[in-house]
Amino acid sequence: MYTLKDYLSRIRTLDTAAMAKARTRLDGLAKPPGSLGTLEDIAIRLAGISGTMAYDADKRCVIIMASDNGVVEEGVALAPQSVTCVQTVNFTKGLTGVSVIAKQFNADLRIVDVGINADLDSPLVRNRKIRKSTWNIAQREAMTYDEAVQAIVIGIETAVEAVKEGYTLLGAGEMGIGNTTTSAAVLCALTGIPVEQAAGKGAGLKEEAYRHKLEVIRTALENTRPDARDPVDVLAKVGGFDIAAMTGVFVGGAYARTPVVIDGFISMVAALAAARLNPLVKEFMFASHASYERGFTHAACALGMEAPLNLHMRLGEGSGCPIMFAVIDAACAVIRDMGTFEQANIDEHYVHAIKDGGNFSVGNT
Amino acid sequence: MYTLKDYLSRIRTLDTAAMAKARTRLDGLAKPPGSLGTLEDIAIRLAGISGTMAYDADKRCVIIMASDNGVVEEGVALAPQSVTCVQTVNFTKGLTGVSVIAKQFNADLRIVDVGINADLDSPLVRNRKIRKSTWNIAQREAMTYDEAVQAIVIGIETAVEAVKEGYTLLGAGEMGIGNTTTSAAVLCALTGIPVEQAAGKGAGLKEEAYRHKLEVIRTALENTRPDARDPVDVLAKVGGFDIAAMTGVFVGGAYARTPVVIDGFISMVAALAAARLNPLVKEFMFASHASYERGFTHAACALGMEAPLNLHMRLGEGSGCPIMFAVIDAACAVIRDMGTFEQANIDEHYVHAIKDGGNFSVGNT
Repeated sequence: MYTLKDYLSRIRTLDTAAMAKARTRLDGLAKPPGSLGTLEDIAIRLAGISGTMAYDADKRCVIIMASDNGVVEEGVALAPQSVTCVQTVNFTKGLTGVSVIAKQFNADLRIVDVGINADLDSPLVRNRKIRKSTWNIAQREAMTYDEAVQAIVIGIETAVEAVKEGYTLLGAGEMGIGNTTTSAAVLCALTGIPVEQAAGKGAGLKEEAYRHKLEVIRTALENTRPDARDPVDVLAKVGGFDIAAMTGVFVGGAYARTPVVIDGFISMVAALAAARLNPLVKEFMFASHASYERGFTHAACALGMEAPLNLHMRLGEGSGCPIMFAVIDAACAVIRDMGTFEQANIDEHYVHAIKDGGNFSVGNT
Repeated sequence: MYTLKDYLSRIRTLDTAAMAKARTRLDGLAKPPGSLGTLEDIAIRLAGISGTMAYDADKRCVIIMASDNGVVEEGVALAPQSVTCVQTVNFTKGLTGVSVIAKQFNADLRIVDVGINADLDSPLVRNRKIRKSTWNIAQREAMTYDEAVQAIVIGIETAVEAVKEGYTLLGAGEMGIGNTTTSAAVLCALTGIPVEQAAGKGAGLKEEAYRHKLEVIRTALENTRPDARDPVDVLAKVGGFDIAAMTGVFVGGAYARTPVVIDGFISMVAALAAARLNPLVKEFMFASHASYERGFTHAACALGMEAPLNLHMRLGEGSGCPIMFAVIDAACAVIRDMGTFEQANIDEHYVHAIKDGGNFSVGNT
C-alpha cells in the first residue's frame, strides 16, 4: 500500500521523445502546420502521457466524489443537505445532468461516497466514506490532517483502480451541497485572492445570503489560518472530503499516466491543489469548460489553464467532462487518421515550402 | 423552381410556443434553472426551429463548397490553385481534416464543385460548377450579379435536398485557395471595418505577402465599390462562388427549418451575408469554434454570435462543424433524458423555492 508521498514521488514527466514524434507526424499531415490548434496540442500531450501516437480514449469514465459539508449549517446553500444523497442516488438512475451527458458520449460514471451524511447502500455507489460530513469550517477545521490525506489517497486509489480496469480517460466531478463555499475558501487559501473574487452565488444565492457566504469564508480562513505551502493543510482546514478526493483523482491519473479532464469550479480548484502537491500532475490534466461560477477563471489562471469550451455551464457533477471527451476524440482521430502530404498527393515542392517557412497553405488561404 | 427571392420570402420565424414549452421542461429538470447554459439555449432554439422538444440530430452532414478564386493570380496565397482540386478529391478519400473529424462524429460530407478550375469527374463530388474560377477581384468583379444569385441558389438547393434526404443537422465548410482574401473583402464591404482588421495571414503568409494581400483587397473594394445594402452585389464583386454558395446553405437551412453550424472565418462571413439577406436566417445558425484567423471575431461580432468552442483552429474545410455537432448532441440528450424534480425525488418544497427566486440548488452549491 502506497502512501500519498509514495504516489507523489512516483509521478514521472511526459515522454518528450513520443511528443516530438507526434509533432513530426502532425506537421506531415495535409494541412498548414498548427492549423488544428488545440487538437494538435492535445494529441501531442496524449503522446507524452502514453508514449504512443495512437491513443485509444474509448473507455472513459467520470469519477464523482460525493460528500457533505458541515458548513451548510451556516445557510450558505439553499438546497438542504439531503440533496447530496438524493442526487447521488439519481446518478445511479441516469437522471442527472452528468448521467445523461456521459451516456451521450459513451462514458461511464464511477460514483464514490466519501462522506455523505446519510446511510447509503447501493451496489452502484462505492462506499469509501471517511465519516458523515465534514465539520463546519465557520467553527473549526473541516477535517483532520490525516483525514485529508486519507481523502486524497481514496481519490488516487479510485483513479488507479479505474485505469487497471482499462479506463484510458478520466473526468473528475462532484456532488456535495455547500461545496462552492469550501472550494472558494481553498482557492483563497492557495492563491491569496480576495474572497469576493473566489466565491460566487453558487446555484442562485440572493444578495444577503451571498454576503453571508463571503463572511463565512473569511471567518474560516481567519480562524484556521491554512498554510498555502501545504495543500493538504489547506484542504483539511477549509476544504471538503469531495474536493480532497478529487485532488486525489488528478494525482492518481498522473501516477497511472492517464489523462484526467477537469470539470467546473470545484474540479478546477481540486486540480490546482493537485498541481501544488506536485507540478507534474498538471501535465496529465485537460481543462474542459469555463464554468460560469465566479471563481473559476481565477482558479484556471492560477493553474495556467485555458478551458476550450465556453458553455456558460455551472451545474457541476462532472457534467462538462464528457463534452471534452468528444474534443479529445477529435484530437485522437486527427493524428491517427488524417492523410500525410504524400498520401494527399500534394507536391513535395510545397512540403518543402512548409518546412522552410510555414508558408504552404491548404484549406483557409 | 423557386428564385432566391422566393426562398427568402418563405422563411418563417421560430416557433415561440415550442420554445416556451422547452423552457418550461428545462426549468423542471433536476438542476438549478439555467445551469446548463448554452446547452439549454441550444435545446430551446432547436425546439423553435423544429416545433418539437425531442430533436433528432443524428443524421448530419457537412456541406463543402469548393471553387477557385481568380485573385490567386496576385500571389495572395502560397498554395497553388491546383490544391483546391487535389483537396476536394482528398475529401472523398477521407484523408483531410474535416473528413476525419466528421467520421469521428458520424457526420457525412457532401462535396459540391461550384467552380473548381479543373475538370473533376467523381461520383462523390456534385457537379454544380458555375464556371472554372471567378475573375481576379484585383482587376474586376469576381462574377456577375446573376452568377452570384446562381451560386446562392445552388447552396440553398444543396441544403434543401439534404434535408429532403433526411439530414437534420448541417454544417457549412469550404475549399478554395485564396478564399481568406475574398472573405476579408466581403467582410469589409458588409461592415466597413478596416482591411487590416478583416484580413489575416491565411495559412501563413509572410509580412510582405500579407501587406500585398491587404493592398489587393483595398484595390478590389475601391474599384468595384460593392453596395453594403445588397449582399448579392457584395458577393458578386469581391466574393467567390464558394462563399456565395455557403451563404445559400445558411439560407436553405432556414428555409427548410434545419439548423446549420458555422465553421470558421469564411463560413462566418457567409453566415453574415445570409443574415443580411434575411435576418431570420440567423435563428437557424449555430456558431462552433472561434477561428484563429484574424477577421473571425469581427465577423462573429457583426452577426452577434459567440462561438462556444475555442480551439485555436484555422484549417477551414468545415472541420469545426462536427465538434459542434457533439455539443448539440449533448443539448438534445439533456432535454430528452434528464429527470424532472419529481422523477429525481426532490421535494416539492424546493421546487417552489426555484420558481419563486431561482434559489434552489442542486450540484454546485
